[in-house]
Amino acid sequence: MPNIRFMHSDAFIRGGQESAGIVTSDGESSQAFKVHKGMGLINHVFSADSLKKLYPSNLGIGHTRYSTSGISELQNCQPFVVETLHGKIAVAHNGELTNAAQLRRKLMRHGVGLSTSSDSELITQLLAFTPPLENDDTADWVARIKNLMKETPTSYSLLIMHKDIIYAVRDPYGNRPLCIGRLIPVGDMNGKGKDNTETEGWVVSSESCSFLSIGAEYYREVLPGEIVKISRHDVQTLDVVRRSEGDPSAFCIFEYVYFARPDSIFEGQMVYSVRKRCGQQLAIEAPVEADLVSTVPESATPAALGYAQKCGLPYVEVLCKNRYVGRTFIQPNMRLRQLGVAKKFGVLSDNFKGKRVVIIDDSIVRGNTISPIIKLLRESGAKEVHIRVASPPIKFPCYMGINIPTKEELIANRPEFHDLANYIGADSVVYLSVEGLVSSVQESIKARRDNSPKTDKSFIGKLGHCTACLTGDYPVELEW
Amino acid sequence: MPNIRFMHSDAFIRGGQESAGIVTSDGESSQAFKVHKGMGLINHVFSADSLKKLYPSNLGIGHTRYSTSGISELQNCQPFVVETLHGKIAVAHNGELTNAAQLRRKLMRHGVGLSTSSDSELITQLLAFTPPLENDDTADWVARIKNLMKETPTSYSLLIMHKDIIYAVRDPYGNRPLCIGRLIPVGDMNGKGKDNTETEGWVVSSESCSFLSIGAEYYREVLPGEIVKISRHDVQTLDVVRRSEGDPSAFCIFEYVYFARPDSIFEGQMVYSVRKRCGQQLAIEAPVEADLVSTVPESATPAALGYAQKCGLPYVEVLCKNRYVGRTFIQPNMRLRQLGVAKKFGVLSDNFKGKRVVIIDDSIVRGNTISPIIKLLRESGAKEVHIRVASPPIKFPCYMGINIPTKEELIANRPEFHDLANYIGADSVVYLSVEGLVSSVQESIKARRDNSPKTDKSFIGKLGHCTACLTGDYPVELEW
Amino acid sequence: MPNIRFMHSDAFIRGGQESAGIVTSDGESSQAFKVHKGMGLINHVFSADSLKKLYPSNLGIGHTRYSTSGISELQNCQPFVVETLHGKIAVAHNGELTNAAQLRRKLMRHGVGLSTSSDSELITQLLAFTPPLENDDTADWVARIKNLMKETPTSYSLLIMHKDIIYAVRDPYGNRPLCIGRLIPVGDMNGKGKDNTETEGWVVSSESCSFLSIGAEYYREVLPGEIVKISRHDVQTLDVVRRSEGDPSAFCIFEYVYFARPDSIFEGQMVYSVRKRCGQQLAIEAPVEADLVSTVPESATPAALGYAQKCGLPYVEVLCKNRYVGRTFIQPNMRLRQLGVAKKFGVLSDNFKGKRVVIIDDSIVRGNTISPIIKLLRESGAKEVHIRVASPPIKFPCYMGINIPTKEELIANRPEFHDLANYIGADSVVYLSVEGLVSSVQESIKARRDNSPKTDKSFIGKLGHCTACLTGDYPVELEW
Amino acid sequence: MPNIRFMHSDAFIRGGQESAGIVTSDGESSQAFKVHKGMGLINHVFSADSLKKLYPSNLGIGHTRYSTSGISELQNCQPFVVETLHGKIAVAHNGELTNAAQLRRKLMRHGVGLSTSSDSELITQLLAFTPPLENDDTADWVARIKNLMKETPTSYSLLIMHKDIIYAVRDPYGNRPLCIGRLIPVGDMNGKGKDNTETEGWVVSSESCSFLSIGAEYYREVLPGEIVKISRHDVQTLDVVRRSEGDPSAFCIFEYVYFARPDSIFEGQMVYSVRKRCGQQLAIEAPVEADLVSTVPESATPAALGYAQKCGLPYVEVLCKNRYVGRTFIQPNMRLRQLGVAKKFGVLSDNFKGKRVVIIDDSIVRGNTISPIIKLLRESGAKEVHIRVASPPIKFPCYMGINIPTKEELIANRPEFHDLANYIGADSVVYLSVEGLVSSVQESIKARRDNSPKTDKSFIGKLGHCTACLTGDYPVELEW
Repeated sequence: MPNIRFMHSDAFIRGGQESAGIVTSDGESSQAFKVHKGMGLINHVFSADSLKKLYPSNLGIGHTRYSTSGISELQNCQPFVVETLHGKIAVAHNGELTNAAQLRRKLMRHGVGLSTSSDSELITQLLAFTPPLENDDTADWVARIKNLMKETPTSYSLLIMHKDIIYAVRDPYGNRPLCIGRLIPVGDMNGKGKDNTETEGWVVSSESCSFLSIGAEYYREVLPGEIVKISRHDVQTLDVVRRSEGDPSAFCIFEYVYFARPDSIFEGQMVYSVRKRCGQQLAIEAPVEADLVSTVPESATPAALGYAQKCGLPYVEVLCKNRYVGRTFIQPNMRLRQLGVAKKFGVLSDNFKGKRVVIIDDSIVRGNTISPIIKLLRESGAKEVHIRVASPPIKFPCYMGINIPTKEELIANRPEFHDLANYIGADSVVYLSVEGLVSSVQESIKARRDNSPKTDKSFIGKLGHCTACLTGDYPVELEW
Repeated sequence: MPNIRFMHSDAFIRGGQESAGIVTSDGESSQAFKVHKGMGLINHVFSADSLKKLYPSNLGIGHTRYSTSGISELQNCQPFVVETLHGKIAVAHNGELTNAAQLRRKLMRHGVGLSTSSDSELITQLLAFTPPLENDDTADWVARIKNLMKETPTSYSLLIMHKDIIYAVRDPYGNRPLCIGRLIPVGDMNGKGKDNTETEGWVVSSESCSFLSIGAEYYREVLPGEIVKISRHDVQTLDVVRRSEGDPSAFCIFEYVYFARPDSIFEGQMVYSVRKRCGQQLAIEAPVEADLVSTVPESATPAALGYAQKCGLPYVEVLCKNRYVGRTFIQPNMRLRQLGVAKKFGVLSDNFKGKRVVIIDDSIVRGNTISPIIKLLRESGAKEVHIRVASPPIKFPCYMGINIPTKEELIANRPEFHDLANYIGADSVVYLSVEGLVSSVQESIKARRDNSPKTDKSFIGKLGHCTACLTGDYPVELEW
Repeated sequence: MPNIRFMHSDAFIRGGQESAGIVTSDGESSQAFKVHKGMGLINHVFSADSLKKLYPSNLGIGHTRYSTSGISELQNCQPFVVETLHGKIAVAHNGELTNAAQLRRKLMRHGVGLSTSSDSELITQLLAFTPPLENDDTADWVARIKNLMKETPTSYSLLIMHKDIIYAVRDPYGNRPLCIGRLIPVGDMNGKGKDNTETEGWVVSSESCSFLSIGAEYYREVLPGEIVKISRHDVQTLDVVRRSEGDPSAFCIFEYVYFARPDSIFEGQMVYSVRKRCGQQLAIEAPVEADLVSTVPESATPAALGYAQKCGLPYVEVLCKNRYVGRTFIQPNMRLRQLGVAKKFGVLSDNFKGKRVVIIDDSIVRGNTISPIIKLLRESGAKEVHIRVASPPIKFPCYMGINIPTKEELIANRPEFHDLANYIGADSVVYLSVEGLVSSVQESIKARRDNSPKTDKSFIGKLGHCTACLTGDYPVELEW
Repeated sequence: MPNIRFMHSDAFIRGGQESAGIVTSDGESSQAFKVHKGMGLINHVFSADSLKKLYPSNLGIGHTRYSTSGISELQNCQPFVVETLHGKIAVAHNGELTNAAQLRRKLMRHGVGLSTSSDSELITQLLAFTPPLENDDTADWVARIKNLMKETPTSYSLLIMHKDIIYAVRDPYGNRPLCIGRLIPVGDMNGKGKDNTETEGWVVSSESCSFLSIGAEYYREVLPGEIVKISRHDVQTLDVVRRSEGDPSAFCIFEYVYFARPDSIFEGQMVYSVRKRCGQQLAIEAPVEADLVSTVPESATPAALGYAQKCGLPYVEVLCKNRYVGRTFIQPNMRLRQLGVAKKFGVLSDNFKGKRVVIIDDSIVRGNTISPIIKLLRESGAKEVHIRVASPPIKFPCYMGINIPTKEELIANRPEFHDLANYIGADSVVYLSVEGLVSSVQESIKARRDNSPKTDKSFIGKLGHCTACLTGDYPVELEW
């Protein structure tokens, strides 16, 4: 079952609720969609019974999202389904339209009432509305999708289901990820059938890491601007809509830094490898005399291993995760409030007592997590604590789908940033440079590009990445 | 808070789920609607917390409904809210549009995707769409409502909220009920202030019985075809849209027979009184030599008391309700299946042992409830059991909002109906005639009509009632 | 499955939680008990799954109770199971031991730690402990039960399960009810097999009303002091332990007045009939000039019908129950607090406008329910409202298992009682006399006793009833 | 609040349910215990409300456990509370009595009915019962505890609460862990007050790792056989009950290998350090020519780092944990069943493609986890996969509180064990030797022992560890 973004990191999510939904089709009648959606974690939304009701079906699309304003937002829950003159369509969307307000006004001026504030409904009604309207008997969905792509440049990865077809679409800038996997026939699971061109079906996902767990293997990415038509046994490129002349592609660089799972593959490279290279680059940019390198478990571990290797320092664990932490009901006194972080980690003090420690973190957003960790390490015997951050400071809001704290909350925009080491209690603190990050990301892509044949369509257009949250340089002009 | 249909009977509901919703407005900005909806009983949908979130607000509309296809239908849950060029509107609807399919096609042909199968969304999008569209600055909602009423004749009682106004609308045939109540100032609750024209606000409801429990008193009915504009301190008739020339009004007669709570008032009369008159009329039409009159608790009690009084027979209780019956998990043997009805009632056998019993029931739909009751009474010592039904047999489907079993399930359409007494095990069984029912309902209305001044607008047009489920005589031509 | 007290009235219960439990045995090994217990309503405690786990089994005992101190009391939940040297026993208990504190001290002095505050554990440990202890191989359970009955006179109805036997025991005073039913073979359900002496098994219950709903019929009461041994096909009296010389029996008279379901049978008479006689007696003791007699639905209806019949006044309904009342979350203003009772009832004002009304209530405990009802009736047009109470005033606490409000809360012990009519706003108020109640209860028992043969063991000993809560006259001396 | 075993590993737990309970005392009256227990995870059992009800209180004991037979076992949930002649006592127990059956029979012969199958009730009733019984006025709890320790040698760590005192007791063999922590005054949290002898109170726990998260610091272990009396401000050794002449102590060696959290301290050493030494020892015992060393995340990481360091091979991550795995509802085909392990881990294939990999695991119990991991690595490109296990094979059942699979399920007792590498698909597989494990554990203890003064009571008696599950050599003779 094709699905979009079943995996999500959670650091930028501010206390949000998750919702989830699946729509399936038996592939015969566009009226026969089966829908199940709900608020909360996937495991709460879907029971064995609710999944059974989605069968039998040959295809389907699913979605998970973080809603930020509570339980009454169920109607914002995706996929969004509407009935049109030409049957039902279901739409799952990852991203955020930069000109949504403009498009909403346009639709409402035509007399369409909008029942949610979600871009998904907006996209769905735009697909239903797109003039000139055909007669009752036929609908040219590809023309409608291309029209939509003309009306809004970014950002969106889309799955659109109609009858027995799913259209997978990525915006011309390729801002949000989308890739295709191939379900491996059972007999081929033992490695023999790797060359076999047969498949049991196709899956689409934001991240390739989800393929393994459902018995699929990575097939390829959907390219920026590409419209892919997926039917039971066939994957076919219908068109590639190009971005404005001269614009480079703009895949979100923060997927590499933070959001994606380390085993996911984007643009031909494993996220883990990029993160390790960021650590190595950081060792070049900001070395430090110390006894050991460690990490805040566990997302910064690849960068820490890269840093340690490049520096020739031992990699040592200083904290262990306390997996049993749950909600904290009562905090009867100051002591517990002081020790919030001590509930999340155990301290392996014998490993670093009397030593100079370098801690690699993947990002510092507000600064209120690293500070008590440093204090904890010092109290447990660390002689020095140096912080190295494997990404540049975040300074600007994202209008393309990532939930970033307000400008005021970001530590990089606050006065304390000028004396950050002192503020967080470290002996020193250095961030990776933007150039260092970009080269860690692009280095191996460029190498492969240089070695690829001219006919390789994957490398069409100018290579680029969206670094807007770091530089304020947005890929498209923002409209309000 | 105006509300629509907070009360519902449950006999014709086939295993359905209930949903509920409330939308409130602070009366200032049309963007500031607060919405809470959910599946399940009102008490499950609304917690103290969710209600608090609906405040502060000056006005609001609510809705409860029975969905028939399960949990994924939350999006069908009312009130329906959409954003239009002129702000948000919220719509609550009771009834069923007889030309819904036609109207859906019309909207979709204009490029509007419909996200639910509910008439409420249809009505809301029709209100948003209605051409000719005004410019961005103004919207004539009354013109839009009147246009809607031209497009669909029945059946609907509507509450439409926009900014600080609620429009209460009843279809030209008056098929579904709707009435207005007045919130009584606290100081006036002790009866002194009855003549006081002051009010603390207005409420609208399908049934007047809900007023008492929220400290309001009955004010008046919304008339068939009337558009009432309700603001904080004012109730004002904007227009009365007339039905087709010569058509009588068509208020659902089954509200009197079955659905409404006995303390509700329709057309100037208490439902309890109509039911008692039905019992008296039944005694005239179908007397029987017996020792006592009783009822299947508890909806047929007024008819039973009326029958007993007219016949001069004593009214005696023969069954008591078992309030502790819950779900039946397992039925390990035949014995329990035979005794399903014995789980719902206790038998007061000493009250009727050796006696000839007349049981008054309010309706016999499928015949599978009365049959085991008769058997139970006989086994417990009744000498004779005669059944008298205080309404005529149901024979036809309802397309105006009442969930009636299929034609095939209705006992009146089955071969067993020809020898019904034998089939259900009674000594005799007689239904009230359609004429008897109609006269029981209309008798006192006509009396008041004859005595009212010519200027009384309540009596405009030809008096009639919808008896379609009994006679097949639908108030409007059905379109598909 | 024998069960004890599956039915309960709820008026004296003060905000309590209900718990429920079932223990079953396959009848072969005393180790093989299957237990399921939980807090909350039966339907929440028992799911289809939890019931399945109790099978296969040939016998079992169940229990429901109202706990008064919250969720942590699950361990007080019955039936209580302990392992003894002679296998497991399970005990279900209805009642309250008047000398519990004394017995607890005795057991603890012998080194038995008590893990709950419940009489059921106390009874179970007393049965396990009873000296002289037999050797490892045999246990004389009947001797142990008789020893228990010597140690504590009242009040208890007990079910004790061991291997394939259930002992049903009622205390010598017969204070709490207990009766035996016979499961009717399927083929005999149509009335033919009434004389058939065959049975499919036996059930025991506090109230006979529960038999019908499980396909059983009333067989007989367990007599005061009787020990009945029940096995799969046999019911056998093992002994009848007599009360102190000269003491009359002391069945709780409030079961007739209030607790029991009207279709239950105690001492050979239907509860409904007793209540109707109370109404007739009340008409003799306290007639009133009025236009109609009515009731507060629905427990006082038999008394109201009896009163109306004796007086020759019409019986008319003035209130209807609002079945849709749930928890009240918020009461945003005075208006709703004033109208609490209006949420529970609808008013059938056309039935009594301008009339003099007699309302029959079954009891007035605190006086805070009847007062707003009277106000409601007057506001809706009643000319006079007279209250007649079909039981005497409650003045004393119960130490035998009934949860009565504290002495201070009882209206009969408060100064307002001296001018009660004025306090509750009635034109007059009269209670039934204690003598009137006792004669209404005993009249038909005495008649049957006079007509029964000398050998009828049911009538052994002096007839009496516990009227302690009305008169302060307790059946046994209270020990602390 | 002192607590026992709030942390637990979960590998040997077979599908079990967790329960949790807390009992608090206000320290004044032994009747005033407040109890909250429940089935399920701590976070489900304890809400903010239920915790509030446990306050105000000065002391308390808590417990978490894995029940193995389902929901009806709530009564087995600890702490166990009973009322005795001398007030209530509450008992929390970690361990398993080797002579429980014998002790149960003894109690039952004295007429005590046992309501659960738990050792905790047994211990509690033994404490209540212990003869000779004192008179009503005094109770010598220490004598009772010592008597209990005479009756049963192992295994138990106990917390016994009575009025304002908690007794912390460890069995003479010290089989289960127990240690004491000191609550640090708020002002001293910044490291200044380390020498401060003041404390805000004491906590007791199975594992020291829990101290940090509640603002306490490690104080000392309870010694084998020690009875410690803890009051608000005082910790006092009452007695040390010695084991049989010549018997060595027998702390469970599997706490080091598997159960304990790596940051816990036992016998003066950090668990993490022992595990790292096991990895180093394993490198000495079973080196292998390879390209990299890795781990199955994340419990074997310290051993893997130790192994890599000793061998001079790079430590590299090959798998990442999939944190989003939930319940698997449906497995519609073979493919998913084959890929169970692929749902738990992501594969970092670029890190090991074409390389020879050594995987360090902490234990192989049944062999059904490591086998698909090896397959996964090979399919993703590993050239060789060698398994090194940082503990010896488990061969024998544990009767002292650890839930080990049956002998038949243990891979070390199955025929496949003789050709294990082939069975699990590895190129080679070697376990750590028993001697290697014991020396990794005892090495640093012995060093400290040799350097400690003769008066150090921590080192009294012969040093030993329970290796029964590895060698069959049980510390005490087993009784049935």
